[in-house]
Amino acid sequence: MPAKLLEGKIIADSLKAKIKAEVDGLKTKHNRAPKLLAVQIGENASSSVYVKAQKKVAESLGIEYELKVLPETFSQAQAEALIKELNNDKNITAIILQLPVPKGIDAKILVKGIAPEKDAEGMHPENLGKILLGNYKIGPCTAMAVMELLESTKINLYGKEAVVVGHSEIVGKPLSLMLLNKFATTTVCHIGTGQRGTLPEHVKRAEVLIVAVGKAGIVKGDWVKEGGIVIDVGINKVGDKIVGDVEFGPASERASYITPVPGGVGPLTTAILMRNTVELFKAGA
Amino acid sequence: MPAKLLEGKIIADSLKAKIKAEVDGLKTKHNRAPKLLAVQIGENASSSVYVKAQKKVAESLGIEYELKVLPETFSQAQAEALIKELNNDKNITAIILQLPVPKGIDAKILVKGIAPEKDAEGMHPENLGKILLGNYKIGPCTAMAVMELLESTKINLYGKEAVVVGHSEIVGKPLSLMLLNKFATTTVCHIGTGQRGTLPEHVKRAEVLIVAVGKAGIVKGDWVKEGGIVIDVGINKVGDKIVGDVEFGPASERASYITPVPGGVGPLTTAILMRNTVELFKAGA
Repeated sequence: MPAKLLEGKIIADSLKAKIKAEVDGLKTKHNRAPKLLAVQIGENASSSVYVKAQKKVAESLGIEYELKVLPETFSQAQAEALIKELNNDKNITAIILQLPVPKGIDAKILVKGIAPEKDAEGMHPENLGKILLGNYKIGPCTAMAVMELLESTKINLYGKEAVVVGHSEIVGKPLSLMLLNKFATTTVCHIGTGQRGTLPEHVKRAEVLIVAVGKAGIVKGDWVKEGGIVIDVGINKVGDKIVGDVEFGPASERASYITPVPGGVGPLTTAILMRNTVELFKAGA
Repeated sequence: MPAKLLEGKIIADSLKAKIKAEVDGLKTKHNRAPKLLAVQIGENASSSVYVKAQKKVAESLGIEYELKVLPETFSQAQAEALIKELNNDKNITAIILQLPVPKGIDAKILVKGIAPEKDAEGMHPENLGKILLGNYKIGPCTAMAVMELLESTKINLYGKEAVVVGHSEIVGKPLSLMLLNKFATTTVCHIGTGQRGTLPEHVKRAEVLIVAVGKAGIVKGDWVKEGGIVIDVGINKVGDKIVGDVEFGPASERASYITPVPGGVGPLTTAILMRNTVELFKAGA
């Protein structure tokens, strides 16, 4: 039986409706709106696409959105000083640095400079540490989006076999902590697993499989467990097509739920960015 | 062939020699010693044992150690205010809160109040988050002790099957991130795994097995993989004996390395506490 599709857009729409209702209430209560400030350094086509999408979603939810474009010639020191200034600006709820940044700018250092209280993307070590401690309201957008998709299936993760492929800082590692917080038995695989040759056996026992590698077809369809849930975070360009990390056709014949790529995790991440902003507003209000 | 014993004391002694040499150098360079301050609230027999051991180790390494005993009648607010004061005291390198605390005192809130720059036990969310980011010098003592024991076996963790039983904030979860940073394929099991009945199959494939549950014999000896490394963090009193979480006799017939209990992880944790103190001194110097 072919899998049900986990369509990110539908889940994002219901999440956005909840966020909008919450923002309405917060505006009434505090007489001001949460405000997300995006910092972009130089001009960049792909960054501009994101910015436009963020602005549209933010405004549809009643969240103020401001884009600050810094000249390409901005130095690292100037950019760091600006972030500090923004951290201290009481009118700004949350800050996001748009990627990529020009050569010569160290984005990692800039992101580290964003105060944990204004960390729209949930990547400050203090916010990541709170995930480990099981005490968090915000988190990295993609990892949070995956949890949202899982929740939409109504699966009870307690005792389930969860396998995460990819151990990045923004998806795999925080996601593994979120799954552990829900009492899933959680395995994280990565390039070390691949080179050892043990990736298929781990994938085959996954009742919940999350793949976030960025390599088309790295997970074969016939490795997918019958009835398992498959969340494919990968976005890869193959010819003119966008495909995920999992062989979609054969995988969808075996899984109970599967994300389409594109259209799975992606549409949810902007909604999570807005939820993070609202949570930061509530924590600071 | 019976396993080699991973004797914590021997490894701790060599670690302490390294720390002492480093402290000697730091004292020459900075003309002052790192200082660890222990806060104890009220009198408590088990806490006093730890304090004595810490003092002895610290002083043998050239680290200053001061115990501040607060009266049993101290309120939460008073204790919090004191921690704040200690955070701002430039003569203090690192702070540890001795457990247990009297009823009515919330230890978690006090520990949270310790600044990340003075966090001797590596439990501040910012320090835990740095472990996730793979960029850390300090960490929770027991998890760091386990990594030290593994290193002493000279195992290359890349691609190895590592299984952690127990997903606590102080051992299992930070340890899983440390193992991932070394590219071990890492599974974390816990009560959800136990209730599902899948604990034996996970343990059986573990080339590196770390058990930190606190339940005598929860891991059966015949589950241990032939040639695997077994680190038993459990300390359980059974009759007059102290035993670990793993059935030692049969497990030691199968493993290549195994920790004795007591005498495995325990003797290392105080040395790691001192190393954390030295690392905090270096970061602040």
